[in-house]
Amino acid sequence: MTGTLTIAGLGPGSEALVTPEVSAALATATDILGYAPYVARVAPRAGLTLRPSDNREELQRAAEALRLAAAGGQVVVVSSGDPGVFAMASAVFEALERVPDYQDLPIRVLPGITAMLAAAARAGAPLGHDFCAINLSDNLKPWAVIEKRLQLAAEADFAIAMYNPRSASRPEGFGRALAVLREAGCGERLVIFARAVSAADEKIEIVALSEATPEMADMRTLVIVGNSQTRRVGRWVYAPRQAR
Amino acid sequence: MTGTLTIAGLGPGSEALVTPEVSAALATATDILGYAPYVARVAPRAGLTLRPSDNREELQRAAEALRLAAAGGQVVVVSSGDPGVFAMASAVFEALERVPDYQDLPIRVLPGITAMLAAAARAGAPLGHDFCAINLSDNLKPWAVIEKRLQLAAEADFAIAMYNPRSASRPEGFGRALAVLREAGCGERLVIFARAVSAADEKIEIVALSEATPEMADMRTLVIVGNSQTRRVGRWVYAPRQAR
Repeated sequence: MTGTLTIAGLGPGSEALVTPEVSAALATATDILGYAPYVARVAPRAGLTLRPSDNREELQRAAEALRLAAAGGQVVVVSSGDPGVFAMASAVFEALERVPDYQDLPIRVLPGITAMLAAAARAGAPLGHDFCAINLSDNLKPWAVIEKRLQLAAEADFAIAMYNPRSASRPEGFGRALAVLREAGCGERLVIFARAVSAADEKIEIVALSEATPEMADMRTLVIVGNSQTRRVGRWVYAPRQAR
Repeated sequence: MTGTLTIAGLGPGSEALVTPEVSAALATATDILGYAPYVARVAPRAGLTLRPSDNREELQRAAEALRLAAAGGQVVVVSSGDPGVFAMASAVFEALERVPDYQDLPIRVLPGITAMLAAAARAGAPLGHDFCAINLSDNLKPWAVIEKRLQLAAEADFAIAMYNPRSASRPEGFGRALAVLREAGCGERLVIFARAVSAADEKIEIVALSEATPEMADMRTLVIVGNSQTRRVGRWVYAPRQAR
């Protein structure tokens, strides 16, 4: 049997948000690789080897997945959310670039519900007008690039989805990001803190940016800063379709 | 029975990309409203009234959905892709703002696979680094706002997903958008034209921006402009995780 490599998005957490396409891929896999908490979302069964690994081991994991597929495995690399948004798909293509021998392997990328879509749906429709998505982790880019993008995003009046706002190893960046946006005149914008969306401990908080504090976010939080027109209606927050 | 209003995303086209959560909502609906081609994706059955309407009637459709839910219906408003991304959710909250009486209705927004995620997955991982999404339709915002956002997005080195690039009633904008990006020094960036992703007539084209022409896009095309680092590996296009 020819080996295949599938890069699949598990969505934000709930089974109800896993696409049938991804469920089918998991059902026929021989090997599943990914960050341990995501691999733990796949039920063990006969004929399936679960291969969890640590965070920050994306490239090694991608190379291992390619090797297993080249050896004939039906290999699935799992990400939470969408695999193409700050997740494993880019790492797999980077690994592929380093080993041209593998470039004829059948590879598929299966999209998933990325965190900002799930968070936005819970809050209302804050991404209903033009927006951007910025990964606040400076593990793979200089912090200056992040600050510049935040400033330009504010100037463009994009809603801003912030991925990986804050972690134990990066406690400072998110506070600086909030300061950059305040300095850019965004203090009155609404900010949504969406933690663990679709999981049992889901929590949604909405405050003005001027009242947002770094401690409101952690590793499991997706933050959406509204644009200048974003407003509340009842318990909801939405971006009007019309720009001024 | 209490009426409910659900705003659901059907994904880009394939049944395999409809989440179980959305399928369940469709299965118990009494009324389904939406733009006719999207309503046509829901199978008729006893007890279900399909209520297709025209494009550009979003606000009337939203108001009608609220009325039906207030009258006790299990009402589902469908969008293609994700309902929160340039789709019906914002229109429903706008309609809700106009009729405060309806603000206690149970409303849910169910996310879907939005076009840029499906397109990115087919091409590789062009949204693997920071990116933005811009609706090129100037029906609800001045063209000057679109141009400014494109310029700032180029300066921020975002990958750029362009929704609604071109239609019969707006034949000119997309060509101007390409010109703005060329003037901003993006001529060498890779551009993905993803048409009818996951449908039978799907077509993916990848060219340098300097070679892109307006005719390559139509109403069913999602365009992704890569960032300055986006590159090819084999038949794939991806954004490296590392910024320079």
